[in-house]
Amino acid sequence: MAGTDKTKRNTQGGPAIVLVAPQLEENIGMAARAMANFGLVDLRLVNPREQFPSQRAINAATKAGVVVEQAKLFCSLEEAIADLSYVFAATARERDSHKPVCTPPQAMRTCHTLVKDNKKCGILFGCEKSGLLNEDISLADKIVTFPVNPACASLNLAQAVLLISYEWMRATIDNLEKPFFEVAPMQPAEKKSLFSLFTQLEQALGQRGYFRPEERKAVMVNNLRGVFTRPSFTEQELKLLRGVFSSLELFVPRQPR
Amino acid sequence: MAGTDKTKRNTQGGPAIVLVAPQLEENIGMAARAMANFGLVDLRLVNPREQFPSQRAINAATKAGVVVEQAKLFCSLEEAIADLSYVFAATARERDSHKPVCTPPQAMRTCHTLVKDNKKCGILFGCEKSGLLNEDISLADKIVTFPVNPACASLNLAQAVLLISYEWMRATIDNLEKPFFEVAPMQPAEKKSLFSLFTQLEQALGQRGYFRPEERKAVMVNNLRGVFTRPSFTEQELKLLRGVFSSLELFVPRQPR
Repeated sequence: MAGTDKTKRNTQGGPAIVLVAPQLEENIGMAARAMANFGLVDLRLVNPREQFPSQRAINAATKAGVVVEQAKLFCSLEEAIADLSYVFAATARERDSHKPVCTPPQAMRTCHTLVKDNKKCGILFGCEKSGLLNEDISLADKIVTFPVNPACASLNLAQAVLLISYEWMRATIDNLEKPFFEVAPMQPAEKKSLFSLFTQLEQALGQRGYFRPEERKAVMVNNLRGVFTRPSFTEQELKLLRGVFSSLELFVPRQPR
Repeated sequence: MAGTDKTKRNTQGGPAIVLVAPQLEENIGMAARAMANFGLVDLRLVNPREQFPSQRAINAATKAGVVVEQAKLFCSLEEAIADLSYVFAATARERDSHKPVCTPPQAMRTCHTLVKDNKKCGILFGCEKSGLLNEDISLADKIVTFPVNPACASLNLAQAVLLISYEWMRATIDNLEKPFFEVAPMQPAEKKSLFSLFTQLEQALGQRGYFRPEERKAVMVNNLRGVFTRPSFTEQELKLLRGVFSSLELFVPRQPR
């Protein structure tokens, strides 16, 4: 999906994304891109399987290569989260753990509150094959889980990062009901423009013997007007329709039926 | 992220995902996986660039290969959406169009309402390079856009499909504040268990000369009890703590300070 706008949102200070033992460089890059899509920049890697820094990861991140380049590398999860105040463990499946569990929107609202209070927070993601280990989860404050279809519960790593990043952006948006961009509202035409369309159309149709039998004419006109009244046409659209009708009228009417 | 549960949700009848001229087979597979993660199954492809059916797409879908195998292939967008009643065009950037624009949650609430009324609906996604063409968008009822970071607005195709699929699942969940799974609620211990812990600990500490100076003892005890009262320990946890203290007591106390 292409397209980039000039206006920048202030999205610094979001949660850290901590990938524990990620296996594939492409997933690191795709996770970075997903973060950048929703304004996150703090990527941390704990013992990635492949050499890092990685050109493949940077390539997979496309325009978010800088997030990969600035990723921090750690030898243990403890070091990776040492400066954070609150940590969520992301998992798709139930764990043998008594950690409290929350939904992504709940987790990101908590993060948003913490960040506004100048506290750092983060979300842990496990490796592609098996997710987080119980020993990783034991270091987290809460579990965050995704409402996946149980028949196909395994989320790709970068997809899981995307959902969290998306919920972060959602949590920071004041009014979720307002689209990200809006078209200029369409101004409905004045009724007189509509009425002159009716006149033109009804005359043209009358000339062609459309209104038959004669006693049905009033009903037929009402139905016709109903059709053209319903969509609240703009002046431009009415002009377009009149052009269409005029064009159709250019031909000599057929012999009335 | 690993893990699959047995319980199946009833998620049939969700919107169709229509990929218009997708370029990469891997993206088709990843999109199918994202759909399956959140219960969508109706994948439609309009003129994919590569040969289809595609083993690479099936492989990329991992456990959701069946969604790829059952995908329908079309030669035109008109054919692909002929049986749908309502169509959204997904785009990240503002278009030269007067179509109304909505957010993903708004779009998926609309779809949910339509589906409950036995109406079919769908979401159009354009190709990786350039997104939907204006001629594609002209066939849609509404535009749905993502609240992306304008500095990095280009969503990967499968990621865009994931967000829509996720919002579909969100729209079908009655109570979004309820996590997908929950741990058994922890039962706080009876106070007498806590008090016997206090007794054990305070005796052990007293023997070791912890409470100094003597006149501070009451305050120190209160502070100590405050620490162990706050987290609402369970019986099991108190038992564990008592074990810890007993173990520490096994050694002969050092010379009191």
